Amino acid sequence: MKTFLDCLPCMMDQALRAGRMATDDERIIKKLLDTVGAMMKDIPMENTPPETGEIIYRKVREITGVTDPYKEIKKANIEEALSLYPELKKNVEESDNSLLTAIRMAIAGNVIDLGVNKKFNLVEDVQKILKQDFAILDFDKFEKQLKIADSVLYLGDNAGESVFDKILIEELNKPVTYVVREIPVINDVTEEDAIASGINEVAEIISSGTTAPAVILSLCNNEFIERFNNSKLIISKGQGNYEGLSNVKQPVFFLLKAKCFVIANELNVEENDIVLKGINV
Amino acid sequence: MKTFLDCLPCMMDQALRAGRMATDDERIIKKLLDTVGAMMKDIPMENTPPETGEIIYRKVREITGVTDPYKEIKKANIEEALSLYPELKKNVEESDNSLLTAIRMAIAGNVIDLGVNKKFNLVEDVQKILKQDFAILDFDKFEKQLKIADSVLYLGDNAGESVFDKILIEELNKPVTYVVREIPVINDVTEEDAIASGINEVAEIISSGTTAPAVILSLCNNEFIERFNNSKLIISKGQGNYEGLSNVKQPVFFLLKAKCFVIANELNVEENDIVLKGINV
Repeated sequence: MKTFLDCLPCMMDQALRAGRMATDDERIIKKLLDTVGAMMKDIPMENTPPETGEIIYRKVREITGVTDPYKEIKKANIEEALSLYPELKKNVEESDNSLLTAIRMAIAGNVIDLGVNKKFNLVEDVQKILKQDFAILDFDKFEKQLKIADSVLYLGDNAGESVFDKILIEELNKPVTYVVREIPVINDVTEEDAIASGINEVAEIISSGTTAPAVILSLCNNEFIERFNNSKLIISKGQGNYEGLSNVKQPVFFLLKAKCFVIANELNVEENDIVLKGINV
Repeated sequence: MKTFLDCLPCMMDQALRAGRMATDDERIIKKLLDTVGAMMKDIPMENTPPETGEIIYRKVREITGVTDPYKEIKKANIEEALSLYPELKKNVEESDNSLLTAIRMAIAGNVIDLGVNKKFNLVEDVQKILKQDFAILDFDKFEKQLKIADSVLYLGDNAGESVFDKILIEELNKPVTYVVREIPVINDVTEEDAIASGINEVAEIISSGTTAPAVILSLCNNEFIERFNNSKLIISKGQGNYEGLSNVKQPVFFLLKAKCFVIANELNVEENDIVLKGINV
Protein backbone atom coordinates (compact mmCIF):
# COMPACT_ATOMS: atom_id res chain seq x y z
CA MET A 1 0.00 0.00 0.00
CA LYS A 2 1.31 3.42 -0.89
CA THR A 3 1.67 6.35 1.51
CA PHE A 4 -1.31 8.71 1.56
CA LEU A 5 -1.13 12.41 2.41
CA ASP A 6 -3.04 11.64 5.62
CA CYS A 7 -0.15 9.41 6.70
CA LEU A 8 2.20 12.42 7.00
CA PRO A 9 0.54 14.23 9.96
CA CYS A 10 -0.04 10.77 11.47
CA MET A 11 3.70 10.11 11.34
CA MET A 12 4.35 13.32 13.29
CA ASP A 13 1.76 12.16 15.78
CA GLN A 14 3.39 8.73 16.08
CA ALA A 15 6.78 10.35 16.65
CA LEU A 16 5.25 12.47 19.43
CA ARG A 17 3.66 9.49 21.16
CA ALA A 18 6.80 7.33 20.84
CA GLY A 19 8.95 10.23 22.05
CA ARG A 20 6.74 10.63 25.11
CA MET A 21 7.00 6.90 25.86
CA ALA A 22 10.79 7.23 25.80
CA THR A 23 11.34 10.46 27.73
CA ASP A 24 9.75 13.28 29.73
CA ASP A 25 12.26 15.80 28.35
CA GLU A 26 10.20 18.09 26.09
CA ARG A 27 13.32 19.51 24.42
CA ILE A 28 14.34 16.06 23.26
CA ILE A 29 10.82 15.35 21.96
CA LYS A 30 10.78 18.73 20.18
CA LYS A 31 14.09 17.80 18.51
CA LEU A 32 12.53 14.50 17.43
CA LEU A 33 9.52 16.29 15.92
CA ASP A 34 11.79 18.83 14.20
CA THR A 35 13.74 15.94 12.68
CA VAL A 36 10.65 14.03 11.56
CA GLY A 37 9.13 17.24 10.17
CA ALA A 38 12.26 17.91 8.13
CA MET A 39 12.11 14.33 6.81
CA MET A 40 8.71 14.88 5.17
CA LYS A 41 10.25 16.10 1.93
CA ASP A 42 12.24 12.86 1.61
CA ILE A 43 9.27 10.53 2.07
CA PRO A 44 8.41 8.98 -1.30
CA MET A 45 4.61 8.62 -1.54
CA GLU A 46 5.06 5.36 -3.45
CA ASN A 47 6.73 3.76 -0.42
CA THR A 48 4.60 1.79 2.02
CA PRO A 49 3.92 3.66 5.29
CA PRO A 50 5.93 1.26 7.49
CA GLU A 51 9.02 1.87 5.34
CA THR A 52 8.82 5.45 6.56
CA GLY A 53 7.90 4.14 10.02
CA GLU A 54 11.20 2.27 10.06
CA ILE A 55 13.10 5.55 9.68
CA ILE A 56 10.93 7.41 12.19
CA TYR A 57 11.22 4.81 14.95
CA ARG A 58 14.96 4.62 14.28
CA LYS A 59 15.07 8.38 14.90
CA VAL A 60 13.12 7.85 18.14
CA ARG A 61 15.85 5.44 19.31
CA GLU A 62 18.72 7.66 18.14
CA ILE A 63 17.39 10.96 19.51
CA THR A 64 16.00 9.71 22.83
CA GLY A 65 18.71 7.05 23.37
CA VAL A 66 15.99 4.59 24.47
CA THR A 67 15.96 1.36 22.46
CA ASP A 68 12.73 -0.10 23.81
CA PRO A 69 10.35 2.59 25.14
CA TYR A 70 7.44 0.13 25.19
CA LYS A 71 9.23 -2.61 27.20
CA GLU A 72 7.17 -2.32 30.38
CA ILE A 73 3.86 -1.76 28.65
CA LYS A 74 4.46 -4.78 26.40
CA LYS A 75 5.11 -6.92 29.50
CA ALA A 76 1.88 -5.66 31.11
CA ASN A 77 -0.13 -6.30 27.94
CA ILE A 78 1.21 -9.86 27.66
CA GLU A 79 0.36 -10.52 31.31
CA GLU A 80 -3.17 -9.16 30.90
CA ALA A 81 -3.71 -11.24 27.77
CA LEU A 82 -2.36 -14.38 29.51
CA SER A 83 -4.83 -13.83 32.35
CA LEU A 84 -7.67 -13.91 29.78
CA TYR A 85 -6.29 -16.95 27.94
CA PRO A 86 -8.11 -19.74 29.87
CA GLU A 87 -11.53 -18.16 29.34
CA LEU A 88 -10.88 -17.27 25.69
CA LYS A 89 -9.67 -20.82 25.09
CA LYS A 90 -12.88 -22.16 26.69
CA ASN A 91 -14.96 -19.85 24.43
CA VAL A 92 -13.23 -21.32 21.38
CA GLU A 93 -13.67 -24.91 22.51
CA GLU A 94 -17.37 -24.41 23.26
CA SER A 95 -18.17 -22.58 20.03
CA ASP A 96 -19.89 -24.15 16.98
CA ASN A 97 -16.96 -23.31 14.72
CA SER A 98 -13.79 -23.31 16.74
CA LEU A 99 -11.55 -22.28 13.83
CA LEU A 100 -13.67 -19.24 12.98
CA THR A 101 -13.94 -18.28 16.64
CA ALA A 102 -10.17 -18.57 16.99
CA ILE A 103 -9.71 -16.30 13.94
CA ARG A 104 -12.04 -13.82 15.59
CA MET A 105 -9.98 -14.03 18.83
CA ALA A 106 -6.78 -13.39 16.90
CA ILE A 107 -8.35 -10.27 15.37
CA ALA A 108 -9.70 -9.18 18.76
CA GLY A 109 -6.14 -9.24 20.11
CA ASN A 110 -5.19 -6.75 17.39
CA VAL A 111 -6.70 -3.93 19.50
CA ILE A 112 -3.43 -3.97 21.49
CA ASP A 113 -1.78 -1.52 19.11
CA LEU A 114 0.21 1.41 20.43
CA GLY A 115 1.16 2.65 16.96
CA VAL A 116 -2.34 4.05 16.37
CA ASN A 117 -3.86 6.92 18.29
CA LYS A 118 -6.60 4.90 19.93
CA LYS A 119 -7.05 3.87 23.52
CA PHE A 120 -8.23 0.35 24.17
CA ASN A 121 -9.80 -1.59 27.00
CA LEU A 122 -8.75 -5.16 26.37
CA VAL A 123 -11.63 -6.97 28.08
CA GLU A 124 -14.37 -4.70 26.71
CA ASP A 125 -12.94 -4.48 23.19
CA VAL A 126 -12.43 -8.23 22.93
CA GLN A 127 -16.02 -8.88 24.03
CA LYS A 128 -17.24 -6.41 21.40
CA ILE A 129 -15.20 -7.95 18.58
CA LEU A 130 -16.30 -11.46 19.49
CA LYS A 131 -19.85 -10.39 18.63
CA GLN A 132 -18.99 -8.12 15.67
CA ASP A 133 -19.84 -9.03 12.05
CA PHE A 134 -16.93 -9.30 9.63
CA ALA A 135 -16.82 -6.65 6.88
CA ILE A 136 -14.79 -9.08 4.75
CA LEU A 137 -14.87 -12.78 5.60
CA ASP A 138 -12.95 -15.06 3.23
CA PHE A 139 -13.41 -18.00 5.57
CA ASP A 140 -14.20 -20.65 2.95
CA LYS A 141 -11.06 -19.74 1.04
CA PHE A 142 -9.11 -19.82 4.30
CA GLU A 143 -10.35 -23.32 5.19
CA LYS A 144 -9.56 -24.56 1.67
CA GLN A 145 -6.06 -23.07 1.72
CA LEU A 146 -5.40 -24.47 5.18
CA LYS A 147 -6.30 -27.93 3.90
CA ILE A 148 -3.74 -27.87 1.07
CA ALA A 149 -0.95 -26.16 3.03
CA ASP A 150 1.71 -28.36 4.67
CA SER A 151 2.55 -25.61 7.11
CA VAL A 152 1.60 -22.06 7.99
CA LEU A 153 3.75 -18.92 8.11
CA TYR A 154 2.19 -16.68 10.76
CA LEU A 155 3.30 -13.02 10.79
CA GLY A 156 2.85 -11.62 14.30
CA ASP A 157 2.03 -8.01 15.01
CA ASN A 158 1.86 -6.73 18.59
CA ALA A 159 3.06 -8.07 21.94
CA GLY A 160 0.04 -9.24 23.92
CA GLU A 161 -1.87 -9.86 20.71
CA SER A 162 0.60 -12.75 20.48
CA VAL A 163 -1.32 -14.57 23.26
CA PHE A 164 -4.44 -14.39 21.08
CA ASP A 165 -2.36 -15.65 18.17
CA LYS A 166 -1.48 -18.72 20.23
CA ILE A 167 -5.17 -19.59 20.44
CA LEU A 168 -5.51 -19.51 16.66
CA ILE A 169 -2.28 -21.44 16.12
CA GLU A 170 -3.65 -24.21 18.36
CA GLU A 171 -6.70 -24.52 16.10
CA LEU A 172 -4.76 -24.69 12.82
CA ASN A 173 -3.51 -28.27 13.34
CA LYS A 174 -0.53 -27.64 11.07
CA PRO A 175 3.12 -26.90 11.78
CA VAL A 176 3.35 -23.15 12.27
CA THR A 177 6.26 -20.76 12.02
CA TYR A 178 5.64 -17.56 13.96
CA VAL A 179 7.46 -14.51 12.63
CA VAL A 180 8.62 -11.70 14.94
CA ARG A 181 10.42 -8.37 14.46
CA GLU A 182 14.22 -8.35 14.62
CA ILE A 183 14.37 -5.58 17.25
CA PRO A 184 11.85 -3.78 19.52
CA VAL A 185 9.83 -1.27 17.46
CA ILE A 186 6.69 0.30 18.92
CA ASN A 187 4.97 -2.53 20.83
CA ASP A 188 5.51 -5.06 18.05
CA VAL A 189 6.16 -8.63 19.07
CA THR A 190 9.81 -9.70 19.35
CA GLU A 191 11.22 -13.18 20.03
CA GLU A 192 11.32 -12.46 23.77
CA ASP A 193 7.66 -11.33 23.75
CA ALA A 194 6.60 -14.36 21.72
CA ILE A 195 8.24 -16.69 24.22
CA ALA A 196 6.63 -14.80 27.14
CA SER A 197 3.30 -15.35 25.36
CA GLY A 198 3.85 -19.12 25.14
CA ILE A 199 4.20 -19.16 21.34
CA ASN A 200 7.30 -21.37 21.65
CA GLU A 201 5.03 -24.16 22.97
CA VAL A 202 3.00 -24.25 19.74
CA ALA A 203 5.22 -22.90 16.94
CA GLU A 204 8.73 -22.37 15.72
CA ILE A 205 9.71 -18.69 16.17
CA ILE A 206 11.81 -16.87 13.57
CA SER A 207 12.67 -13.23 12.93
CA SER A 208 11.79 -11.55 9.65
CA GLY A 209 15.02 -9.62 10.06
CA THR A 210 13.26 -6.31 9.64
CA THR A 211 13.61 -3.33 11.92
CA ALA A 212 10.43 -1.77 10.47
CA PRO A 213 7.12 -1.91 12.36
CA ALA A 214 5.81 -4.39 9.75
CA VAL A 215 6.99 -7.05 7.32
CA ILE A 216 8.57 -5.15 4.41
CA LEU A 217 10.08 -7.76 2.12
CA SER A 218 12.87 -5.49 0.87
CA LEU A 219 14.02 -5.06 4.49
CA CYS A 220 13.78 -8.75 5.50
CA ASN A 221 16.53 -11.37 5.71
CA ASN A 222 17.02 -14.03 3.02
CA GLU A 223 15.93 -16.93 5.21
CA PHE A 224 12.59 -15.29 5.86
CA ILE A 225 12.08 -14.25 2.23
CA GLU A 226 12.69 -17.83 1.10
CA ARG A 227 10.13 -19.15 3.58
CA PHE A 228 7.69 -16.42 2.53
CA ASN A 229 8.05 -17.21 -1.17
CA ASN A 230 7.49 -20.93 -0.61
CA SER A 231 4.53 -20.71 1.77
CA LYS A 232 1.12 -22.00 0.74
CA LEU A 233 -0.57 -20.17 3.59
CA ILE A 234 0.62 -16.94 5.15
CA ILE A 235 -1.39 -15.40 7.99
CA SER A 236 -0.65 -11.69 8.31
CA LYS A 237 -1.77 -9.87 11.43
CA GLY A 238 -2.54 -6.18 11.72
CA GLN A 239 -2.47 -2.95 9.75
CA GLY A 240 1.30 -2.56 9.38
CA ASN A 241 1.74 -5.99 7.80
CA TYR A 242 -1.19 -5.23 5.47
CA GLU A 243 0.40 -1.94 4.44
CA GLY A 244 3.66 -3.75 3.72
CA LEU A 245 2.24 -6.82 1.96
CA SER A 246 -1.00 -5.83 0.22
CA ASN A 247 0.64 -6.12 -3.22
CA VAL A 248 2.63 -9.36 -2.89
CA LYS A 249 2.06 -12.41 -5.12
CA GLN A 250 1.86 -15.05 -2.37
CA PRO A 251 -1.28 -16.52 -0.74
CA VAL A 252 -1.80 -14.25 2.24
CA PHE A 253 -4.76 -13.90 4.59
CA PHE A 254 -4.91 -10.56 6.37
CA LEU A 255 -6.49 -10.63 9.81
CA LEU A 256 -7.01 -7.14 11.17
CA LYS A 257 -9.20 -4.51 12.67
CA ALA A 258 -9.26 -1.35 10.48
CA LYS A 259 -8.12 1.21 13.02
CA CYS A 260 -7.52 4.15 10.68
CA PHE A 261 -9.70 5.50 7.89
CA VAL A 262 -6.90 5.35 5.31
CA ILE A 263 -6.66 1.59 5.66
CA ALA A 264 -10.45 1.28 5.92
CA ASN A 265 -10.76 3.15 2.58
CA GLU A 266 -8.07 1.00 0.99
CA LEU A 267 -9.96 -2.15 2.04
CA ASN A 268 -13.31 -0.59 1.12
CA VAL A 269 -14.65 -1.11 4.65
CA GLU A 270 -15.55 1.24 7.52
CA GLU A 271 -13.22 2.31 10.31
CA ASN A 272 -13.31 -0.22 13.20
CA ASP A 273 -14.50 -3.03 10.91
CA ILE A 274 -12.89 -6.45 11.27
CA VAL A 275 -11.52 -8.27 8.27
CA LEU A 276 -10.36 -11.72 7.14
CA LYS A 277 -9.18 -11.04 3.61
CA GLY A 278 -7.35 -13.50 1.38
CA ILE A 279 -5.24 -12.54 -1.65
CA ASN A 280 -3.81 -14.80 -4.35
CA VAL A 281 -6.00 -17.72 -3.28
CA MET B 1 -1.07 30.39 25.67
CA LYS B 2 2.17 28.73 24.66
CA THR B 3 2.55 26.10 21.95
CA PHE B 4 2.38 22.52 23.22
CA LEU B 5 4.11 19.56 21.59
CA ASP B 6 0.66 18.24 20.62
CA CYS B 7 0.14 21.39 18.52
CA LEU B 8 2.90 20.36 16.09
CA PRO B 9 1.27 17.27 14.52
CA CYS B 10 -2.02 19.24 14.61
CA MET B 11 -0.41 21.97 12.50
CA MET B 12 0.56 19.39 9.89
CA ASP B 13 -3.00 18.16 9.97
CA GLN B 14 -4.37 21.69 9.56
CA ALA B 15 -2.05 22.27 6.60
CA LEU B 16 -3.34 19.07 5.01
CA ARG B 17 -6.99 20.03 5.47
CA ALA B 18 -6.47 23.60 4.25
CA GLY B 19 -4.43 22.33 1.29
CA ARG B 20 -7.25 19.98 0.35
CA MET B 21 -9.77 22.82 0.53
CA ALA B 22 -7.60 24.79 -1.91
CA THR B 23 -6.63 22.15 -4.46
CA ASP B 24 -7.05 18.55 -5.61
CA ASP B 25 -3.45 18.41 -6.80
CA GLU B 26 -1.74 16.00 -4.41
CA ARG B 27 1.74 17.12 -5.50
CA ILE B 28 0.98 20.68 -4.42
CA ILE B 29 -0.41 19.49 -1.09
CA LYS B 30 2.66 17.28 -0.58
CA LYS B 31 4.87 20.33 -1.20
CA LEU B 32 2.83 22.24 1.39
CA LEU B 33 3.29 19.46 3.96
CA ASP B 34 7.01 19.25 3.17
CA THR B 35 7.28 22.99 3.75
CA VAL B 36 5.28 22.96 7.00
CA GLY B 37 7.27 19.92 8.21
CA ALA B 38 10.54 21.72 7.56
CA MET B 39 9.19 24.74 9.51
CA MET B 40 8.83 22.73 12.73
CA LYS B 41 12.38 23.47 13.83
CA ASP B 42 11.70 27.22 13.61
CA ILE B 43 8.52 27.18 15.73
CA PRO B 44 9.31 28.68 19.14
CA MET B 45 7.32 26.82 21.79
CA GLU B 46 6.83 30.06 23.70
CA ASN B 47 4.84 31.53 20.80
CA THR B 48 1.07 31.21 20.83
CA PRO B 49 -0.26 28.55 18.41
CA PRO B 50 -2.02 31.07 16.10
CA GLU B 51 1.28 32.91 15.59
CA THR B 52 2.49 29.74 13.95
CA GLY B 53 -0.92 29.36 12.32
CA GLU B 54 -0.36 32.72 10.63
CA ILE B 55 2.77 31.39 8.92
CA ILE B 56 1.16 28.06 8.00
CA TYR B 57 -1.95 29.57 6.41
CA ARG B 58 0.27 32.07 4.58
CA LYS B 59 2.14 29.07 3.14
CA VAL B 60 -1.22 27.56 2.13
CA ARG B 61 -1.97 30.72 0.13
CA GLU B 62 1.53 30.94 -1.36
CA ILE B 63 1.92 27.31 -2.34
CA THR B 64 -1.62 26.66 -3.60
CA GLY B 65 -2.14 30.14 -5.05
CA VAL B 66 -5.66 30.19 -3.55
CA THR B 67 -6.29 33.15 -1.26
CA ASP B 68 -9.64 32.05 0.13
CA PRO B 69 -10.11 28.27 0.00
CA TYR B 70 -13.08 28.45 2.39
CA LYS B 71 -15.03 31.12 0.45
CA GLU B 72 -17.91 28.90 -0.68
CA ILE B 73 -18.20 26.97 2.56
CA LYS B 74 -18.25 30.23 4.57
CA LYS B 75 -21.09 31.49 2.40
CA ALA B 76 -23.04 28.25 2.94
CA ASN B 77 -22.44 28.34 6.70
CA ILE B 78 -23.66 31.95 6.93
CA GLU B 79 -26.77 31.07 4.94
CA GLU B 80 -27.53 28.05 7.13
CA ALA B 81 -27.06 30.13 10.29
CA LEU B 82 -29.29 32.90 8.91
CA SER B 83 -32.02 30.35 8.25
CA LEU B 84 -31.91 29.38 11.94
CA TYR B 85 -31.82 32.99 13.17
CA PRO B 86 -35.59 33.61 13.59
CA GLU B 87 -36.09 30.52 15.74
CA LEU B 88 -32.95 31.12 17.81
CA LYS B 89 -34.02 34.71 18.34
CA LYS B 90 -37.44 33.49 19.52
CA ASN B 91 -35.73 31.05 21.95
CA VAL B 92 -33.78 33.93 23.45
CA GLU B 93 -36.82 36.17 23.78
CA GLU B 94 -38.89 33.45 25.43
CA SER B 95 -36.19 32.36 27.88
CA ASP B 96 -36.07 33.31 31.58
CA ASN B 97 -32.67 34.93 31.21
CA SER B 98 -32.30 36.27 27.69
CA LEU B 99 -28.71 37.51 28.18
CA LEU B 100 -27.48 34.12 29.42
CA THR B 101 -29.37 32.32 26.65
CA ALA B 102 -27.84 34.67 24.08
CA ILE B 103 -24.36 33.92 25.49
CA ARG B 104 -25.13 30.23 25.14
CA MET B 105 -26.25 30.84 21.51
CA ALA B 106 -23.02 32.67 20.75
CA ILE B 107 -21.03 29.72 22.12
CA ALA B 108 -23.22 27.25 20.21
CA GLY B 109 -22.29 29.05 16.98
CA ASN B 110 -18.63 28.32 17.78
CA VAL B 111 -19.08 24.74 16.51
CA ILE B 112 -18.70 26.20 12.97
CA ASP B 113 -14.92 25.85 13.10
CA LEU B 114 -13.02 24.42 10.15
CA GLY B 115 -9.62 24.85 11.81
CA VAL B 116 -10.21 21.88 14.12
CA ASN B 117 -10.52 18.30 12.95
CA LYS B 118 -14.15 17.86 13.96
CA LYS B 119 -17.23 17.53 11.85
CA PHE B 120 -20.30 19.41 12.96
CA ASN B 121 -24.03 19.28 12.35
CA LEU B 122 -25.19 22.82 13.02
CA VAL B 123 -28.79 22.14 14.03
CA GLU B 124 -28.00 19.11 16.21
CA ASP B 125 -24.92 20.63 17.85
CA VAL B 126 -26.68 23.89 18.63
CA GLN B 127 -29.59 22.03 20.23
CA LYS B 128 -27.12 20.05 22.34
CA ILE B 129 -25.20 23.13 23.51
CA LEU B 130 -28.38 24.98 24.38
CA LYS B 131 -29.02 22.29 27.01
CA GLN B 132 -25.40 21.76 28.08
CA ASP B 133 -24.08 22.85 31.50
CA PHE B 134 -21.23 25.37 31.53
CA ALA B 135 -17.89 24.04 32.83
CA ILE B 136 -16.92 27.64 33.71
CA LEU B 137 -19.68 30.24 34.05
CA ASP B 138 -18.54 33.71 35.14
CA PHE B 139 -21.97 35.14 34.39
CA ASP B 140 -22.27 37.37 37.50
CA LYS B 141 -18.93 38.99 36.68
CA PHE B 142 -20.04 39.39 33.08
CA GLU B 143 -23.27 41.16 34.06
CA LYS B 144 -21.37 43.43 36.44
CA GLN B 145 -18.75 44.32 33.86
CA LEU B 146 -21.40 44.94 31.21
CA LYS B 147 -23.09 47.39 33.58
CA ILE B 148 -19.95 49.53 34.03
CA ALA B 149 -18.78 49.37 30.40
CA ASP B 150 -19.74 52.22 28.04
CA SER B 151 -19.23 49.98 25.05
CA VAL B 152 -18.20 46.46 24.13
CA LEU B 153 -15.34 45.25 21.93
CA TYR B 154 -16.50 41.96 20.41
CA LEU B 155 -13.80 39.76 18.80
CA GLY B 156 -15.42 37.56 16.17
CA ASP B 157 -14.18 34.09 15.28
CA ASN B 158 -15.79 32.13 12.44
CA ALA B 159 -18.06 33.05 9.53
CA GLY B 160 -21.54 31.71 10.28
CA GLU B 161 -20.85 31.86 14.01
CA SER B 162 -21.14 35.60 13.31
CA VAL B 163 -24.93 35.20 12.92
CA PHE B 164 -25.07 33.77 16.43
CA ASP B 165 -22.90 36.69 17.60
CA LYS B 166 -25.53 39.07 16.26
CA ILE B 167 -28.07 37.54 18.64
CA LEU B 168 -25.80 38.20 21.62
CA ILE B 169 -24.95 41.72 20.44
CA GLU B 170 -28.67 42.51 20.32
CA GLU B 171 -28.99 41.54 24.00
CA LEU B 172 -26.03 43.61 25.23
CA ASN B 173 -27.82 46.99 24.92
CA LYS B 174 -24.50 48.81 24.55
CA PRO B 175 -22.65 50.18 21.55
CA VAL B 176 -20.65 47.27 20.13
CA THR B 177 -17.60 47.19 17.89
CA TYR B 178 -17.27 43.86 16.09
CA VAL B 179 -13.71 42.88 15.18
CA VAL B 180 -12.95 40.82 12.07
CA ARG B 181 -9.78 39.41 10.48
CA GLU B 182 -7.92 41.55 7.95
CA ILE B 183 -7.87 38.84 5.26
CA PRO B 184 -9.54 35.46 4.73
CA VAL B 185 -7.81 32.85 6.92
CA ILE B 186 -9.41 29.42 7.45
CA ASN B 187 -13.14 30.13 7.81
CA ASP B 188 -12.60 33.10 10.12
CA VAL B 189 -15.00 36.00 9.83
CA THR B 190 -13.95 38.89 7.57
CA GLU B 191 -15.69 42.23 7.03
CA GLU B 192 -17.57 40.81 4.04
CA ASP B 193 -18.76 37.82 6.09
CA ALA B 194 -19.81 40.04 8.99
CA ILE B 195 -21.91 42.18 6.66
CA ALA B 196 -23.45 39.08 5.08
CA SER B 197 -24.35 37.98 8.63
CA GLY B 198 -26.12 41.28 9.34
CA ILE B 199 -23.61 42.45 11.94
CA ASN B 200 -23.50 45.91 10.31
CA GLU B 201 -27.12 46.40 11.42
CA VAL B 202 -26.17 46.09 15.10
CA ALA B 203 -22.50 47.03 15.43
CA GLU B 204 -19.60 48.96 13.99
CA ILE B 205 -17.25 46.58 12.16
CA ILE B 206 -13.47 47.04 12.30
CA SER B 207 -10.50 44.88 11.34
CA SER B 208 -7.89 43.87 13.91
CA GLY B 209 -5.38 44.15 11.12
CA THR B 210 -4.07 40.66 11.74
CA THR B 211 -3.57 37.99 9.11
CA ALA B 212 -3.37 35.30 11.81
CA PRO B 213 -6.34 33.00 12.53
CA ALA B 214 -6.82 34.80 15.89
CA VAL B 215 -6.24 38.16 17.58
CA ILE B 216 -2.50 38.32 18.26
CA LEU B 217 -1.80 41.79 19.62
CA SER B 218 1.73 41.96 18.23
CA LEU B 219 0.31 41.41 14.73
CA CYS B 220 -2.62 43.88 15.05
CA ASN B 221 -2.86 47.45 13.78
CA ASN B 222 -2.49 50.46 16.10
CA GLU B 223 -6.11 51.55 15.89
CA PHE B 224 -7.29 48.17 17.12
CA ILE B 225 -4.65 47.95 19.85
CA GLU B 226 -5.71 51.35 21.21
CA ARG B 227 -9.35 50.28 21.29
CA PHE B 228 -8.35 47.00 22.94
CA ASN B 229 -6.29 48.73 25.63
CA ASN B 230 -9.11 51.15 26.48
CA SER B 231 -11.99 48.68 26.53
CA LYS B 232 -13.82 47.92 29.76
CA LEU B 233 -15.42 44.81 28.29
CA ILE B 234 -13.92 42.60 25.60
CA ILE B 235 -15.82 39.56 24.40
CA SER B 236 -13.49 37.04 22.79
CA LYS B 237 -14.94 34.21 20.76
CA GLY B 238 -13.38 30.82 20.16
CA GLN B 239 -10.21 28.87 20.77
CA GLY B 240 -7.82 30.84 18.57
CA ASN B 241 -8.59 34.15 20.28
CA TYR B 242 -8.17 32.43 23.67
CA GLU B 243 -4.79 31.06 22.63
CA GLY B 244 -3.74 34.53 21.54
CA LEU B 245 -5.15 36.53 24.47
CA SER B 246 -5.14 34.29 27.56
CA ASN B 247 -2.31 36.31 29.13
CA VAL B 248 -3.38 39.91 28.41
CA LYS B 249 -4.05 42.47 31.16
CA GLN B 250 -7.42 43.72 29.90
CA PRO B 251 -10.92 42.65 31.04
CA VAL B 252 -11.73 39.83 28.62
CA PHE B 253 -14.53 37.26 28.67
CA PHE B 254 -13.77 34.16 26.65
CA LEU B 255 -16.79 32.43 25.13
CA LEU B 256 -15.86 29.11 23.61
CA LYS B 257 -16.37 25.41 23.23
CA ALA B 258 -13.19 23.49 24.13
CA LYS B 259 -12.71 21.54 20.92
CA CYS B 260 -9.21 20.19 21.55
CA PHE B 261 -7.76 18.54 24.63
CA VAL B 262 -4.78 20.92 24.81
CA ILE B 263 -7.10 23.90 25.33
CA ALA B 264 -9.37 21.87 27.60
CA ASN B 265 -6.34 21.04 29.79
CA GLU B 266 -5.21 24.66 29.80
CA LEU B 267 -8.69 25.75 30.97
CA ASN B 268 -8.91 22.81 33.38
CA VAL B 269 -12.13 21.57 31.76
CA GLU B 270 -13.01 18.53 29.65
CA GLU B 271 -12.96 18.37 25.85
CA ASN B 272 -16.31 19.57 24.41
CA ASP B 273 -17.11 21.61 27.53
CA ILE B 274 -18.53 25.11 27.07
CA VAL B 275 -17.01 28.06 28.86
CA LEU B 276 -17.73 31.69 29.79
CA LYS B 277 -14.49 32.72 31.49
CA GLY B 278 -13.58 36.24 32.58
CA ILE B 279 -10.04 37.45 33.23
CA ASN B 280 -8.93 40.72 34.88
CA VAL B 281 -12.43 41.43 36.17
